[in-house]
Amino acid sequence: MIPNLTINPQRLWDTLMDTAKFGGTSKGGIKRLTLSDEDKQVRDWFCEACRVLGCTVRIDAVGNIYARRAGKRNDLAPIAMGSHLDTQPTGGKFDGVLGVLAGLEAMRTLVENGYETNAPVEIINWTNEEGSRFAPGMLGSAVVAGDYTPEFAWSLMDREGANFGKELERIGYKGSDTVASKTYSAMFELHIEQGPILEKEGKEIGIVTGVQAMRWYEVTVTGETAHTGATPMYMRKNALLGAARVIDAVDRLAHEFAPDAVATVGLVENSPNSRNVIPGEVFFTIDLRHPDDNVLLTIEHRIRAELATILTPLQLTWEETCIWAAPAVRFAPELIECVKIGAAKSGFSTREIVSGAGHDAAFISKIAPTTMIFVPCLGGISHNEAESSTLAECGAGTQVLLNAVLEFDRRLGG
Amino acid sequence: MIPNLTINPQRLWDTLMDTAKFGGTSKGGIKRLTLSDEDKQVRDWFCEACRVLGCTVRIDAVGNIYARRAGKRNDLAPIAMGSHLDTQPTGGKFDGVLGVLAGLEAMRTLVENGYETNAPVEIINWTNEEGSRFAPGMLGSAVVAGDYTPEFAWSLMDREGANFGKELERIGYKGSDTVASKTYSAMFELHIEQGPILEKEGKEIGIVTGVQAMRWYEVTVTGETAHTGATPMYMRKNALLGAARVIDAVDRLAHEFAPDAVATVGLVENSPNSRNVIPGEVFFTIDLRHPDDNVLLTIEHRIRAELATILTPLQLTWEETCIWAAPAVRFAPELIECVKIGAAKSGFSTREIVSGAGHDAAFISKIAPTTMIFVPCLGGISHNEAESSTLAECGAGTQVLLNAVLEFDRRLGG
Repeated sequence: MIPNLTINPQRLWDTLMDTAKFGGTSKGGIKRLTLSDEDKQVRDWFCEACRVLGCTVRIDAVGNIYARRAGKRNDLAPIAMGSHLDTQPTGGKFDGVLGVLAGLEAMRTLVENGYETNAPVEIINWTNEEGSRFAPGMLGSAVVAGDYTPEFAWSLMDREGANFGKELERIGYKGSDTVASKTYSAMFELHIEQGPILEKEGKEIGIVTGVQAMRWYEVTVTGETAHTGATPMYMRKNALLGAARVIDAVDRLAHEFAPDAVATVGLVENSPNSRNVIPGEVFFTIDLRHPDDNVLLTIEHRIRAELATILTPLQLTWEETCIWAAPAVRFAPELIECVKIGAAKSGFSTREIVSGAGHDAAFISKIAPTTMIFVPCLGGISHNEAESSTLAECGAGTQVLLNAVLEFDRRLGG
Repeated sequence: MIPNLTINPQRLWDTLMDTAKFGGTSKGGIKRLTLSDEDKQVRDWFCEACRVLGCTVRIDAVGNIYARRAGKRNDLAPIAMGSHLDTQPTGGKFDGVLGVLAGLEAMRTLVENGYETNAPVEIINWTNEEGSRFAPGMLGSAVVAGDYTPEFAWSLMDREGANFGKELERIGYKGSDTVASKTYSAMFELHIEQGPILEKEGKEIGIVTGVQAMRWYEVTVTGETAHTGATPMYMRKNALLGAARVIDAVDRLAHEFAPDAVATVGLVENSPNSRNVIPGEVFFTIDLRHPDDNVLLTIEHRIRAELATILTPLQLTWEETCIWAAPAVRFAPELIECVKIGAAKSGFSTREIVSGAGHDAAFISKIAPTTMIFVPCLGGISHNEAESSTLAECGAGTQVLLNAVLEFDRRLGG
């Protein structure tokens, strides 16, 4: 019942490799931080590639890019395919990028076949999914979902003091398109798994049923700077010693709630950070995730208890804030069905999976039927310049993306 | 037998407070990093203050400043009083600074009394004692002692990529005076204790008999960056977890060798330092000290064993280098005697003490008879903007410094 349209895996691959030069690193990864010069370069390239296909390109107030091809019935809300083109500081070539460029490849396939969909079809590049320059991440999709205002996004500062709104203007992506009027019939996001499960089980396609709950915390531990040589051990208030023990405890707690919990201290800033000064203050972050909202809260309480247990005897004080919380997400059953049918049509092996990572799709699921498709990545490695996926794997995911869009669109027409 | 010359404690104090404005911080400390603009300001001020007294000011190839007043017998090698004017990033107003400005106050006292010494008397400001911008510390005195060449000093880079030699030229303190010809009859360094012992025991003067052995290490732990959400705990190679456990072990080992051992991780750099990336590499330093060279080596071996025990099971690799080693130092008995006599003349209470901190005096002791005088500091706190010593304490130390110089000079004349 799904029309036979076949994507071009080699063209997709060439596009992935060609655009990896925008922020490309010597180790084969990409450093394309949100609203950096490299982000502007890939955005300019993407807008032009979509215009060449005859798409209408619009930019909203936080820099999200929407490239739309009209359907037969423009009274229908569009079907979207989206992800993000920004990367981690030492990111790979696939995380996020694949989802946008697969959308482009699907669009190219529709255009070259002269295939008319019922609903309009749109490719979206969401701004600041990674959150590594401007926290929180998934910012562009969260603004569209109504979780944050554009003003909140504009007010964010990076750790060097640069402002989100000013950087957005500087690279020319503060658009006039309103973010309030977004409605979609469906949104599909293709992404690499960023974990080891599909590769381990030899499955080509992950049918993503939801996203685990996740929370981000910021902790500042305060002690007292003093001379390393002349201050006896018993007189010290060493903030880094306290932070080190908390980092160890966070890891231990995640193991205690195995196999589903993950908890990580990813960012640490030590002060004054001098070889012969006992550290007086340490700032660090905690990233905590679990598929069950209630278990997540239990772990959070345990971490808070550990802070007191560890830091009080060391004569340290601390502040701890939960700066971001995303509840567990369940994706739209009808869209999951379209992905299953789309994978079956092309004969790919599949497995249902819960996403361990946050994605723009988790936010969009609040305002529109949404789901995701995963493809394997080498060793489950992501957020790393060695992140890798094959031409065949990317091609399979892109074919399933197109098939799912066509299946959903077919149902709209019926 | 020592002539009755009395220093002016209030003038000393005013000089300490006035010059604290060069790099003064809002919390009452000083940030005067080696070869920074603030370092240049205080150097310019110091040179001028010495010239006003009629001293000859010379600068050597690594920026050490020598201000000399002639004696009756200029065939005698000079008697030096020296310390350093650079500070930690969040340093106090006394560490190092007191030793130089006490030398200035002693010199002012000699001049205003028209007192002629037998030997020339010299005040020295050593370059880069702290080592927090350019490691290793005590650089200027170490070059004079012959431990490093001027070329080595010039080649050093700070962590932002600035070069020592270029910075030295930039601030105008790359002098032409040779560093090879320094000979001294004696070198006295007055310093705050930077520890709690004198204050705790109510002693006014610490008769310093030596400096403990100390070593600096650099460690790089390497794991693998990966996504915090999608990477199960059992698959991780978390470099920061390994570093955290080593930081804890370093502290534990120092406690095991109580009460004399101190060991500290003061500087940590985490990479890529992003909230949702498992850290792939962590660089940190270890500062290890003990009064006994052999015990220090035992602790070093234990730390090396801990690295393997902790990091191997976490699937992490590491590199560890000892970048600096200073053996235990015993100061010159004759100078220690001059300090004791100098303190007794003014009726101050004293205690013999081993320095926990490294000092320029430890290097100069290799090429000339050397010793130190300590005064108490509030709570033993140092390398901290709250570092504090009183007018009376600083005045007492400075009087003993002058008395010791006069006693030593008297013996030369005899």
